[in-house]
Amino acid sequence: MGLFIVFEGIEGCGKTTQIELLGRYLAGKKLPIVITREPGGTPVSEEIRKIFLHSVNRDILPLTELLLVTAARVQHVDQLIRPALHDDKIVVCDRFCDATVAYQGYGEGIPLALIFKSQELFLDYLRPDITMLFDCPVEVGLSRSRSRNKAEGLELAEGRFEEKTVQFHEKVRGGYLDLAKREPERFTIVDAQQSIEAIHEQVCLAIDAKLKEKGYAV
Amino acid sequence: MGLFIVFEGIEGCGKTTQIELLGRYLAGKKLPIVITREPGGTPVSEEIRKIFLHSVNRDILPLTELLLVTAARVQHVDQLIRPALHDDKIVVCDRFCDATVAYQGYGEGIPLALIFKSQELFLDYLRPDITMLFDCPVEVGLSRSRSRNKAEGLELAEGRFEEKTVQFHEKVRGGYLDLAKREPERFTIVDAQQSIEAIHEQVCLAIDAKLKEKGYAV
Repeated sequence: MGLFIVFEGIEGCGKTTQIELLGRYLAGKKLPIVITREPGGTPVSEEIRKIFLHSVNRDILPLTELLLVTAARVQHVDQLIRPALHDDKIVVCDRFCDATVAYQGYGEGIPLALIFKSQELFLDYLRPDITMLFDCPVEVGLSRSRSRNKAEGLELAEGRFEEKTVQFHEKVRGGYLDLAKREPERFTIVDAQQSIEAIHEQVCLAIDAKLKEKGYAV
Repeated sequence: MGLFIVFEGIEGCGKTTQIELLGRYLAGKKLPIVITREPGGTPVSEEIRKIFLHSVNRDILPLTELLLVTAARVQHVDQLIRPALHDDKIVVCDRFCDATVAYQGYGEGIPLALIFKSQELFLDYLRPDITMLFDCPVEVGLSRSRSRNKAEGLELAEGRFEEKTVQFHEKVRGGYLDLAKREPERFTIVDAQQSIEAIHEQVCLAIDAKLKEKGYAV
């Protein structure tokens, strides 16, 4: 029934780079992989992503964010993630449900119970097989993501969360670490201050172990 | 605390024309009015409206629709409707919560309990003071709205619901009539096959009665 891998972490933690490297590693082993992201992954969900991340929408309410990201996820799970897992593919997703708990819950202050309730009502909670949490100090992540956005001209496009205060990002980071503590068997925490190569090596070790556990020939 | 008037009905029932006429009527009485619509009414909600109604998004799931329209509504209620009512304004809104029950519930088949639950969780259910339901046979409404869309070149823009089957619209119409039966004190059903003038007269009578009841000098 496939393998569902999720990468999580604050802005600038390096997960997007690591997803690319993991994609190449798994493709090199001739394993069937699908790389996707949240919010996004389907045409409708990518349209929702634009509203969600666009800096113009500064007055968007936390509850509106929760509903938008859940709308995008319902579509993504039904049209891409579940069918791919059903076809025995390895799905690597950049952010999933934990990001909503960390950002809209710990960060924005929506009661965690309401977020879990909405995941239960609308998503029939699909649990990742393994969640890699890339952890680093907020200043390190933010300075990386801001300089990347500048280089790519993304400041006005997908910068809404990068613009939030350091305190906000500290809460998000703390939220992720709390979630990892609650489910240590699902989470692998990676020190995202190491070199790209060292991190990639750690990711490959963790994923290889999970693949073996699931019966893949690696 | 203002007055919250909602106009409901299937496609082509004539509610948009009637809202314009009512707006002029109330403005003529020097009453402070705000005319708005759903999904929409705020910049973010209007962006959501585009995704919701665009014919390109034919594969959008009913649950995704429910979440999108609820996201737009949360923003609309918080940023426009509640503040206007708080300022003692008369808010006239083209569609509201009943439309979600009629379209996504009766029409698309989402369990009504899930829709009511989501309204309770996210919207702290704001009840219209009066809901005018414009009722007409589905064929009458659809032929009106299709010819209007054609004239306005809206076929590819906001035509997604008009494209659905007659059976779908029959379910929506039946849903609206059921809702009106459940809350006869809130709903006024208008026969939308009458002339524009006759309907406008009936609308003014109903609204005037509600205004008097609420202590407005009319």
